[in-house]
Amino acid sequence: MKRRALDDMNCSIAQTLDVVGDSWTLLIVRDALFDVTRFDDFQRRLDIPRTTLSSRLTTLVEHGVMERRPHESTPARHDYVLTPKGRALHPVVVSMLQWGDAWSSLPEPPVTLVDADTDAEIDPVYIDRNSGKPLTELNIQRRHN
Amino acid sequence: MKRRALDDMNCSIAQTLDVVGDSWTLLIVRDALFDVTRFDDFQRRLDIPRTTLSSRLTTLVEHGVMERRPHESTPARHDYVLTPKGRALHPVVVSMLQWGDAWSSLPEPPVTLVDADTDAEIDPVYIDRNSGKPLTELNIQRRHN
Repeated sequence: MKRRALDDMNCSIAQTLDVVGDSWTLLIVRDALFDVTRFDDFQRRLDIPRTTLSSRLTTLVEHGVMERRPHESTPARHDYVLTPKGRALHPVVVSMLQWGDAWSSLPEPPVTLVDADTDAEIDPVYIDRNSGKPLTELNIQRRHN
Repeated sequence: MKRRALDDMNCSIAQTLDVVGDSWTLLIVRDALFDVTRFDDFQRRLDIPRTTLSSRLTTLVEHGVMERRPHESTPARHDYVLTPKGRALHPVVVSMLQWGDAWSSLPEPPVTLVDADTDAEIDPVYIDRNSGKPLTELNIQRRHN
């Protein structure tokens, strides 16, 4: 019922929430972005009930966010890997990471983002490609098309 | 139970989901970012049950994301306004908007973001402040502190 309501809204944000508007789902995507692929690894890291994990993975596969691949060494098992559509969720995960770093009650950021190729720290900031300004400097409004 | 589990995780993303990991909550924040302030306006735009809206607004106030202010013309009523902590959620909303624009089944983006001061279109992109590169060009990993 709720799912269909979101899916019916003519709003890109509601459409996104229809796919990932569930906390477990976004934590699965988080771990998948950082190269977790096996059911048992997701289960142990998230401490999530197996039936819940199974149903969330199935939904993500149905939405084309993840795909199931035969496991390299044990073909009877599967890896769960993000598709390009799934990898494109990284700004959602990064923006949540930054907000939690800045505003949650955690004493310090538990994680630093780095470029695995150079080991350099990454400091993500949202800018407007047209003006070069950080979004915080802009008075953002929406115009309906 | 689920809420406490997220709150207990030493992860900034889980901490964020503890506050806004609910579809209605993020749709309320979306409308608040675009200057909706009155209970009845949220209710009509979202087509949300009044008791659900009331409980979500109360939770957002408790988390310091919104504050209740006496209504200008009708002091017995209240406006719900984002705090700085709440306005800082705009990258989460913008990243969901962009993902929905790119990957949902909507025929075209329903909304264009503009700068209300200049009416210029805004094209948000996440870059690394240190290297200037778009995040998509980087091989992002996490280092635990």
